[in-house]
Amino acid sequence: MSSVTIPPPECMLRPLEVPFRYLFGPGPSNVPPRVLAAGGRGIIGHMHPEMYEIMNDIKKGIQYAFQTQNNMTIAMSGSGHAAMECAVFNTVEPGESVLVAVNGIWGERVAEIAERMGANVHIMVKAPGGVFSNEEIEKALAKHKPVLFFLTHGESSAGLAHPVDGIGDLCRKHNTLFLVDAVASLGASPIFMDQQNIDILYTGSQKALNAPPGTAPISFNERACQKMFNRKTKPVSYLFDMAHLSNYWGNDGQPARLSFGPISGLLCLSHQYLVFVFPQGLEESWRHHREVAGYLWKGLEDMGLKLFIQNKDLRLPSVTTIAIPEGYNWREMLQYIMKHHNMEMTGGLGPSTGMVSVRGMLKF
Amino acid sequence: MSSVTIPPPECMLRPLEVPFRYLFGPGPSNVPPRVLAAGGRGIIGHMHPEMYEIMNDIKKGIQYAFQTQNNMTIAMSGSGHAAMECAVFNTVEPGESVLVAVNGIWGERVAEIAERMGANVHIMVKAPGGVFSNEEIEKALAKHKPVLFFLTHGESSAGLAHPVDGIGDLCRKHNTLFLVDAVASLGASPIFMDQQNIDILYTGSQKALNAPPGTAPISFNERACQKMFNRKTKPVSYLFDMAHLSNYWGNDGQPARLSFGPISGLLCLSHQYLVFVFPQGLEESWRHHREVAGYLWKGLEDMGLKLFIQNKDLRLPSVTTIAIPEGYNWREMLQYIMKHHNMEMTGGLGPSTGMVSVRGMLKF
Repeated sequence: MSSVTIPPPECMLRPLEVPFRYLFGPGPSNVPPRVLAAGGRGIIGHMHPEMYEIMNDIKKGIQYAFQTQNNMTIAMSGSGHAAMECAVFNTVEPGESVLVAVNGIWGERVAEIAERMGANVHIMVKAPGGVFSNEEIEKALAKHKPVLFFLTHGESSAGLAHPVDGIGDLCRKHNTLFLVDAVASLGASPIFMDQQNIDILYTGSQKALNAPPGTAPISFNERACQKMFNRKTKPVSYLFDMAHLSNYWGNDGQPARLSFGPISGLLCLSHQYLVFVFPQGLEESWRHHREVAGYLWKGLEDMGLKLFIQNKDLRLPSVTTIAIPEGYNWREMLQYIMKHHNMEMTGGLGPSTGMVSVRGMLKF
Repeated sequence: MSSVTIPPPECMLRPLEVPFRYLFGPGPSNVPPRVLAAGGRGIIGHMHPEMYEIMNDIKKGIQYAFQTQNNMTIAMSGSGHAAMECAVFNTVEPGESVLVAVNGIWGERVAEIAERMGANVHIMVKAPGGVFSNEEIEKALAKHKPVLFFLTHGESSAGLAHPVDGIGDLCRKHNTLFLVDAVASLGASPIFMDQQNIDILYTGSQKALNAPPGTAPISFNERACQKMFNRKTKPVSYLFDMAHLSNYWGNDGQPARLSFGPISGLLCLSHQYLVFVFPQGLEESWRHHREVAGYLWKGLEDMGLKLFIQNKDLRLPSVTTIAIPEGYNWREMLQYIMKHHNMEMTGGLGPSTGMVSVRGMLKF
């Protein structure tokens, strides 16, 4: 007969301690009290009519934020990384060609995801923060004939806002789906899913959208749906299979069952759009980010620091990267700032380790 | 030049409406205000020392709830389904043999997940709520020589608590990993991971644990770690690769980067263990569930209703299934109960559609 032999840990007696921090790293962001309060509302069932109404409102909010009319627009359970896997798993079949623009950690990640699921992966590589010209992209599209081309709009590891104009048209010409990662940029830097012919776009809740981490808005246009709903093989993940997720979001008019939505996270997301993006509008959010980033850039440069992205027009307004002067230890500096000012800034990621990222905006 | 053409939706002007419901379906459960409040605390960075401390406390809480000393014990971002995919993706390689006990929807689901990732799947099938004898299981283990055997402990679609004793030993004898789904049962029905030789065990946050949906505790023992960290191929999902997740949870003493934990969800989970399981203890939680379920069963039987699981010892104390008498429409009844009493009960799932599930416990 089995019995309880492992005692309750003593830490359970301690009250929960959550210190306040100014989150000036690339994410997660500080979440405004009103949004947090939305997540603290009581739980309702994931299949109740009121939950569907909230989800429907969230869908409309994402359509506005993405500037798209795509019906296949949902918020996934998980981080932006979950949306990244979802996009690749659903639109690519094993053996198909995928082209990935790598100029920081997120391209590297997508290449690895596509490789793991058996795609034939081709990469175009630039140094962190490098910009791919439309000519270079078209040449690679013509050469590799990929079913999917991946580009990071907001390359947070370098602080780059990559230009997107014209690439969607090139992808159409070459019968390629255009997948864009806007995790670090959406809400802070302009992007227009429909007008820019982006076939699949995703972001995360915890960056410029100022909601807690745990949900990831994603949208697929008709071209992407055509490809993903006419597969020969099933996507390797059941959890991320858009055939199920789209039903859960009522895209067949018949709610699916068995998917547990992250209900508190969705309430936050709902309240986020409600309270923040709407009253000021997208243009004002972009303008404000740009303005605040401008002050930050000037202040940093006045101190004699060098920003990693030279061209102001290519800088991400939500994440600023500072090249660390020789002779300074970035880890020590970040620890000092955290210890004495309660401010989080972070070192670079992957290829940009050794640079420092800082956000200039705190919205309350 | 692109411009904003899609206007903000009108729904953004409406305040957030979240009605109160008595959640008596199999899950999600009503979440106590104190736990909701924990999720409404401010966000801190996923890589801050305080967050690691909270995660470490959660780990100890899960070890207690699972009755295990396994170091490889974490809470995943996602539903119990995410933990299900994580377990299969990490411990099985394409072409390997997997044995799945199917007596309701969760076995069906695991069989599909294993098939999608290329495993050689064998199933043992019983009608919903059916019990597999240890003899039947050993025969199938000997025949199919699986690397993994899956069994649902709390089969919520049928209301069954499947016996587990002795199966872990059989799996060891046949060099098979024993994977158990305790999503619907953990905290309500006794399970002893170490003493019962369960190699991989997982649950969800939103059932008997009374936290919001969105996190999923999972634990792997040494045998499971041996198998999953000595693979020839990489798991098909980067997001669910335990090589990364275990680092994030500090199992290598060196926190990993880039994983966005569902911070609010983790705070809830932390506070849940703190407030609920500890003060009363696991035995008291099991006893209380059993007692309340007993009242419910008696009340239902006194009304002339027939419970789907005949043998009381095999009934799940957290989810009771009622066979619907002939001539009654279960959908209409559930709608009536919701409309007039604000109570959620649900129809069965998958093979048990047409039965009704009801939980008898509300903890505040």
